[in-house]
Amino acid sequence: MSISRTELKKFTSLNRKSKRKEHGLFIVEGEKNCLELLKSKVEIIKLYVSSRLIDRFPNGEECSINSLDRISQLKNTSEVIAICKTPLNESYKNDGKPIIYVDSISDPGNLGSIIRSLDWFGYKHIFCSKDTVDAYNNKVVMSSMGSIFRINIHYREFEELRKEFIDFKILITSLDGEKINSSDFVNKSILVIGNESNGVSDDIKKQSETKIKIPGYGLAESLNASVATGIILYELSKITLQK
Amino acid sequence: MSISRTELKKFTSLNRKSKRKEHGLFIVEGEKNCLELLKSKVEIIKLYVSSRLIDRFPNGEECSINSLDRISQLKNTSEVIAICKTPLNESYKNDGKPIIYVDSISDPGNLGSIIRSLDWFGYKHIFCSKDTVDAYNNKVVMSSMGSIFRINIHYREFEELRKEFIDFKILITSLDGEKINSSDFVNKSILVIGNESNGVSDDIKKQSETKIKIPGYGLAESLNASVATGIILYELSKITLQK
Repeated sequence: MSISRTELKKFTSLNRKSKRKEHGLFIVEGEKNCLELLKSKVEIIKLYVSSRLIDRFPNGEECSINSLDRISQLKNTSEVIAICKTPLNESYKNDGKPIIYVDSISDPGNLGSIIRSLDWFGYKHIFCSKDTVDAYNNKVVMSSMGSIFRINIHYREFEELRKEFIDFKILITSLDGEKINSSDFVNKSILVIGNESNGVSDDIKKQSETKIKIPGYGLAESLNASVATGIILYELSKITLQK
Repeated sequence: MSISRTELKKFTSLNRKSKRKEHGLFIVEGEKNCLELLKSKVEIIKLYVSSRLIDRFPNGEECSINSLDRISQLKNTSEVIAICKTPLNESYKNDGKPIIYVDSISDPGNLGSIIRSLDWFGYKHIFCSKDTVDAYNNKVVMSSMGSIFRINIHYREFEELRKEFIDFKILITSLDGEKINSSDFVNKSILVIGNESNGVSDDIKKQSETKIKIPGYGLAESLNASVATGIILYELSKITLQK
């Protein structure tokens, strides 16, 4: 089975954010990610599979490596590629866990890894500033390892979020913060994760009630953003575990 | 000032592991990383700087963006690039912290991020299986954010390490492990971090005395390797803090 020229053009264009928005579609590649996708509620428009993997994906359309290669956004062509509808978000409900807000995260691997950690620790939502990398960027999807199909991703400016959750306490990580302690995270708080190079933006800093830090001993100036987030979520999980 | 053709050929070849080994050299790119480099003990052979940045690196040799572009291994050419001697390792001394062993980590971003976390938590050494990605790969250097200049990196097969530290307890992360607890990490232990896809190799699994896990609640199958390592080092830091 071959892919029509029109489809091919449309699908290869999905490497651009504007085209993903326009068509409301995104791409999922690779065996592991596609198996996770099949278990999820995300709607699959097309599922293209190589002859080698067709037994594992019997509902897929068998197609040539050459065609797969043209859609694939990876260096090593994937033998299974799905074209999916960007899922609609469920609206946020306070479940006793803090709201996680990422402020201008630019590295797709970091965002994917943060989404994966959120899923691991039982979160259902992430809020992202509008200049955060697009979550349906292929690299974010890949590094989330399937977690992106289970997390509701809301792009929203901080001010909007603030108005909506006016009585929530704002926590930021800061080098001059207090040692992180799970009791900082009372019900109704927003934890802000800053940009990889510049940290949390000044506007948000001014509004924050609590500054926390992960104690360090060495000479490293900071931790990787997704590692720092993982540590905070872990510390937090000690109290959210019961909920 | 221009770079000689012979030098250019040699330096551009440093994107290959075999050439880095042959020449005993590696490349450091970018302002932040090069500033960290200058503070370190790593020997710099050449420091090439664009005219824009020469004031910040007065000891550098000014050269054209075109020449920098030929040496740079990044998509966006760096305006400062250093050619450095691969540092000699200091030998390991037991400082009460566990030995960290990475088993076949393949993603350079993960290795760099693990090295950065080790530095943050006051470690001086990392041991890597020989099939782990080369630490002087440009992407590892970049993502370590300068920490690679402070950490001793030992490539060693697990069996060799085992013989050398025969009385050390081996800990691995495992989905059927016990909830991580800082008291698992007695003095004299080796913590093994497994490969991104396959986890800890069977040979090492068989020899491990303790299996630990990071409690999770969601549906994610696992955490990113560098995030998981960061969380374990954080939990551990609660006891190593005093040392």
